[in-house]
Amino acid sequence: MTPTILDGAAYAAEIRQDVAQQVRALRAGGRDVCLAAVLVGSDPAGRQYAGSQARQCEQVGISYRLVERPADISQDALLAILDELNADPTVTGVMLHMPLPAHIDAAIAQWRIDPYKDVEGVNPANIGLLFYGEPIIAPCTALAVNELIRRSGFVAEGRNAVVVGQSRIVGKPITMFLLAQNATVTACHKLTRDLPAHTNQADLLVVGVGIPRFINAEHVRRGAVVIDVGINSVVERGPDGVEQRRTVGDVYFERVAPLCAAITPVPGGVGPLTVAMLLRNTVEAARKQGSMAR
Amino acid sequence: MTPTILDGAAYAAEIRQDVAQQVRALRAGGRDVCLAAVLVGSDPAGRQYAGSQARQCEQVGISYRLVERPADISQDALLAILDELNADPTVTGVMLHMPLPAHIDAAIAQWRIDPYKDVEGVNPANIGLLFYGEPIIAPCTALAVNELIRRSGFVAEGRNAVVVGQSRIVGKPITMFLLAQNATVTACHKLTRDLPAHTNQADLLVVGVGIPRFINAEHVRRGAVVIDVGINSVVERGPDGVEQRRTVGDVYFERVAPLCAAITPVPGGVGPLTVAMLLRNTVEAARKQGSMAR
Repeated sequence: MTPTILDGAAYAAEIRQDVAQQVRALRAGGRDVCLAAVLVGSDPAGRQYAGSQARQCEQVGISYRLVERPADISQDALLAILDELNADPTVTGVMLHMPLPAHIDAAIAQWRIDPYKDVEGVNPANIGLLFYGEPIIAPCTALAVNELIRRSGFVAEGRNAVVVGQSRIVGKPITMFLLAQNATVTACHKLTRDLPAHTNQADLLVVGVGIPRFINAEHVRRGAVVIDVGINSVVERGPDGVEQRRTVGDVYFERVAPLCAAITPVPGGVGPLTVAMLLRNTVEAARKQGSMAR
Repeated sequence: MTPTILDGAAYAAEIRQDVAQQVRALRAGGRDVCLAAVLVGSDPAGRQYAGSQARQCEQVGISYRLVERPADISQDALLAILDELNADPTVTGVMLHMPLPAHIDAAIAQWRIDPYKDVEGVNPANIGLLFYGEPIIAPCTALAVNELIRRSGFVAEGRNAVVVGQSRIVGKPITMFLLAQNATVTACHKLTRDLPAHTNQADLLVVGVGIPRFINAEHVRRGAVVIDVGINSVVERGPDGVEQRRTVGDVYFERVAPLCAAITPVPGGVGPLTVAMLLRNTVEAARKQGSMAR
């Protein structure tokens, strides 16, 4: 079986084009799209990610405002910043970079973001609405997975979907998303007994566990669609015997791909599409704010 | 196999006693527990339910305030009432009777209830927090199912749980609840193909579909714990040939019970416990409001 390789990078490019067009249209109507990102602490990785985000926003015409605060900021002061951004009519989207320092309750902070500006879709109210099947804004990774499924031609309704890994930001939202599409969904995780018995029932297998090549051929039913959310860095010897760093997924691609109808590569699958979904959420949040009497 | 019959009515009586004691303790500390219920339209069934609710509250010492409005109330006027109740410090719990007239968006109205006063646990923010595994207040039916599971001695962690029926107020919250307990959860519904293949893997089977005796012996694995959320009224001939009205569950009790380790009866299982959980949520909401600086 020659699987369809789901090219997340190419789909992301299309979505960025579409977002850029929508931003231009909004701007022509006198509305700006502005994402404010709050970064607490001067973690170099966080800075780097924020820098990449700024460039991505710039590419599609979204104004980007980075609000940096030191790691010792109090929770109340952070909440006050979020309140200001919520109230600021020139800000149409708000996101909070993770991780936060240990003295801040991340759930309380995320909850403070106005659900209509919550471009990551992580506010409990948005999660609750996703659960109710009517999200205002859905979590980016779940949207990315969903877009890949859609582009594979797979129709989830009535099919068996198995989601391996039940983290708050990946597995659980994806489980809800698939349930909203009327798949029969089995949610597996590290306490699941006899994982292959479950995954071998899967017409659609979504994996986000953070373990390199965790899913092997024994886990996969022939003809399945496999979406790999994992992004793991491993060091291994190449054919020339030299050690090199590689990025691999949670799925053992070389062994699983021959069994699949469609599969995502890592890198180049879910990752780039997740970033594109943040941009799409940002422009959609701006449109919704513009179109409603609030 | 002689199953344990999970006596919801008896457990509910224990919970009511415990709630009554907590209400007395709060009152001794100068805090009243008051549930305000909003009933829109003069539907006799709704009135009857509200009356039963008032009696139940009275029994455990919870003050009950029924706010009745005509069916033609505007959505804005209804939201204004909820805002008033949210702001009223003498009201510690708020609930909205369903169904609402068609011109009112039920999701928007439920969302308006302060998550700390939302004693039914239906506000999207509470659902989102349940999803995150940290509910302030969880939905009553899911709590009732959970209590029955706990009393059966079943430990969900790592076990296979199958939830048949994925309604917003029953199946979906229960699915989330079991996931928060680290069960491997399969969510089934009317579009599921080959239902028995799924249900026969279930160590725990929860059913809420609203179809009399939908689950039969062929669906159930020997030794399973079965929780029946259905309450259906059927008319059938008794042994004497006379037609009579009976209340039956979604599980064919007589045929399924002999296979089970434990099972809920209908009536007398989930139903009475759901009402008791509303009372418990009401007193817990009052306690949380008293204990926090808001």
